[in-house]
Amino acid sequence: MAPTDSTKIVDSQENNEGEMPEEVPIGNKNFNAGGPMPFGKDMIDAAMGLQDLFNGFQNSQIVHTAVVLKINDIIGDGELAAWEVADRLECSVKYKHRDELVSNVSRLLNACVSLKVLKKTNASTYKNTVSGHLLKDNKLPFNDLFHFMPVLYRAFGRLAYNFSRGESNDSIFDDKGMLKLVEVKEVNNQETITRKFGTVMSKMTSMDAKAILQNPRVQNLLKNIDVCCDIGGGNGTLAKCLAKKYPSTKFVVFDKSFPINCTTKSDQPSTNLKFQSGDFFDKSTIPEAAIYILSHVLVDFGDQMGRKLLSNLHGCLKEGQSVLILEKILRDDKSGPTDVVLYDMGMMALHKGRERTKSEYFDMIYQAGFSKCEYISMGKSSKRDIILATK
Amino acid sequence: MAPTDSTKIVDSQENNEGEMPEEVPIGNKNFNAGGPMPFGKDMIDAAMGLQDLFNGFQNSQIVHTAVVLKINDIIGDGELAAWEVADRLECSVKYKHRDELVSNVSRLLNACVSLKVLKKTNASTYKNTVSGHLLKDNKLPFNDLFHFMPVLYRAFGRLAYNFSRGESNDSIFDDKGMLKLVEVKEVNNQETITRKFGTVMSKMTSMDAKAILQNPRVQNLLKNIDVCCDIGGGNGTLAKCLAKKYPSTKFVVFDKSFPINCTTKSDQPSTNLKFQSGDFFDKSTIPEAAIYILSHVLVDFGDQMGRKLLSNLHGCLKEGQSVLILEKILRDDKSGPTDVVLYDMGMMALHKGRERTKSEYFDMIYQAGFSKCEYISMGKSSKRDIILATK
Repeated sequence: MAPTDSTKIVDSQENNEGEMPEEVPIGNKNFNAGGPMPFGKDMIDAAMGLQDLFNGFQNSQIVHTAVVLKINDIIGDGELAAWEVADRLECSVKYKHRDELVSNVSRLLNACVSLKVLKKTNASTYKNTVSGHLLKDNKLPFNDLFHFMPVLYRAFGRLAYNFSRGESNDSIFDDKGMLKLVEVKEVNNQETITRKFGTVMSKMTSMDAKAILQNPRVQNLLKNIDVCCDIGGGNGTLAKCLAKKYPSTKFVVFDKSFPINCTTKSDQPSTNLKFQSGDFFDKSTIPEAAIYILSHVLVDFGDQMGRKLLSNLHGCLKEGQSVLILEKILRDDKSGPTDVVLYDMGMMALHKGRERTKSEYFDMIYQAGFSKCEYISMGKSSKRDIILATK
Repeated sequence: MAPTDSTKIVDSQENNEGEMPEEVPIGNKNFNAGGPMPFGKDMIDAAMGLQDLFNGFQNSQIVHTAVVLKINDIIGDGELAAWEVADRLECSVKYKHRDELVSNVSRLLNACVSLKVLKKTNASTYKNTVSGHLLKDNKLPFNDLFHFMPVLYRAFGRLAYNFSRGESNDSIFDDKGMLKLVEVKEVNNQETITRKFGTVMSKMTSMDAKAILQNPRVQNLLKNIDVCCDIGGGNGTLAKCLAKKYPSTKFVVFDKSFPINCTTKSDQPSTNLKFQSGDFFDKSTIPEAAIYILSHVLVDFGDQMGRKLLSNLHGCLKEGQSVLILEKILRDDKSGPTDVVLYDMGMMALHKGRERTKSEYFDMIYQAGFSKCEYISMGKSSKRDIILATK
């Protein structure tokens, strides 16, 4: 007997009453699922919102996988079928059965389409979307961000545990400037990860540096300065931009040893830029300067350590001189902007660092002895706002 | 000298030109970031979309943490300040310094506000949103889903690695019916996790069961049947609903040993329901029945194993009798619905199981010897559609 395909497609979406178990207590009411449409649009929206929150880690890992496999770079500006992508994958040699490889690639590409980092043509080939192009290995931070993701992914996996045990680490860096992260060895070796972290931070800084340097208040502050010291300046991304713009000022990048050693040959310091290692919690090792920069540094420390660092810098400055603090600030109600809140949770999972509101920064600055604070917002899409602390 | 607070708030969001590094290749063009507004709205949208995808795992873990700490249950129908929530937390005893506890709780609650699972009142107290109420420990699956999350979170953390090594496991269950999951011991013990998994699946099933049982085609199929066997029926959630509705039919839940033993006392089988353990890949152990149910079972296996299982059932049935398959199907273009695509990726991270389109299910069914296929969509919000395979 030949198969007969008597497909029936009946959309019973209208029938909502069977979708929830009976008597679910919501708020003060007991809804009975047997009644007529007890679940309003707001509850269905809320349920879908929770599903999105649950899907979050899955979405992140799908993009991470695409980035690790270089899917967006392989497709580039062209369009490729799943089997063509499969043949270009480095890991293709690991598969014993080609049909299994092509099947897996096809599933991954379709998942990328659902997340809009790829689009599918009518000919079942795949092209990069705008997001897909941004994900390619280029000067933007997205590729590095998703490459680096496993470290943060694991750290966030400890959020509930770390919260419950009531303890946290003082810093994410050890004494040699290496990233101290939970189980980091399994993900990759510590030096590679620390380097990657430097690259991500560096690209992030590049994205913000230009706007910051064009700010009139910052320009006014930096002109006619002898020495400017970037405290915790890592591989010197910001200092290099500054050194180029202000050739008659000397710039010192002051940090723990490793981030400095990790600068590559193309990053050689220019004549008015030098790297110096030391501990910024030990006042005696801090280089003399007429202005200090703290870019994304205070956020990595608790209030006590932050105050100590600011006090040290206060002690090094003359009256009227300033610390240029670059940090994204929390809204006064502390529940936004989203990126800042998430970063704050990341730090809660990792160490004693924290995000702060404008007034929390101001309090810390005044307590360290400074007499004047200024705040300049750099806008929603910038990762850093400006706070000026003047002695 | 008293501090003078000369705050300046200058929103320089308009100045977009400094936000991207120079010459970022996108598509076929090289954009020069020095030019006037080279980054259009679509690129800024794409960048924000990628940021959302990167934030995904962080959002998931924040909700997981809130659920583990029972935040939404503690707040209940009332409103509480951060310190009041802090005092009610089980883990409060672990904190040496109360101010650190209150500070951490406050940060977490604000993060929950940013994710809309809580809302903040003008008096700085916190209340449950509709999502917050759904997250409480109740008959809905959300609380269990987020409790159970670490297992899937870890599995997804292996997606890129598992993809690259070109190998996958045959099943997520071992021979004793225990969940075989990467590093599962660290998260929780295997039995607890397997039980939790059963609870999640059971609540999911409850949400769908009523609508499925009200479907006329299903009702027509189940009336006047002697014996119905639910293959891989776990703790019997679906079979219990059926046994109640069809008291003159005998129902057998057939599965590996553990999920059956895990039924609690309140789940005692009724007179027309029994549990039987065995291996559904061994035809000789499958109970005789006039109809078999495969609810969320085929999805856990590759095509070869799926065909074998269907062939076994085909061999047990008489002509005209059917297998009732309950699975959510992939769209024909395979890049949606989102939940199904994500589930497919989860299985790729875990084992050989996979989601399928309607025609892929039909192919598998015909290849197993069945002569007729029917498909009935149960709508967007149901986790299961209906496929009927008739001998």
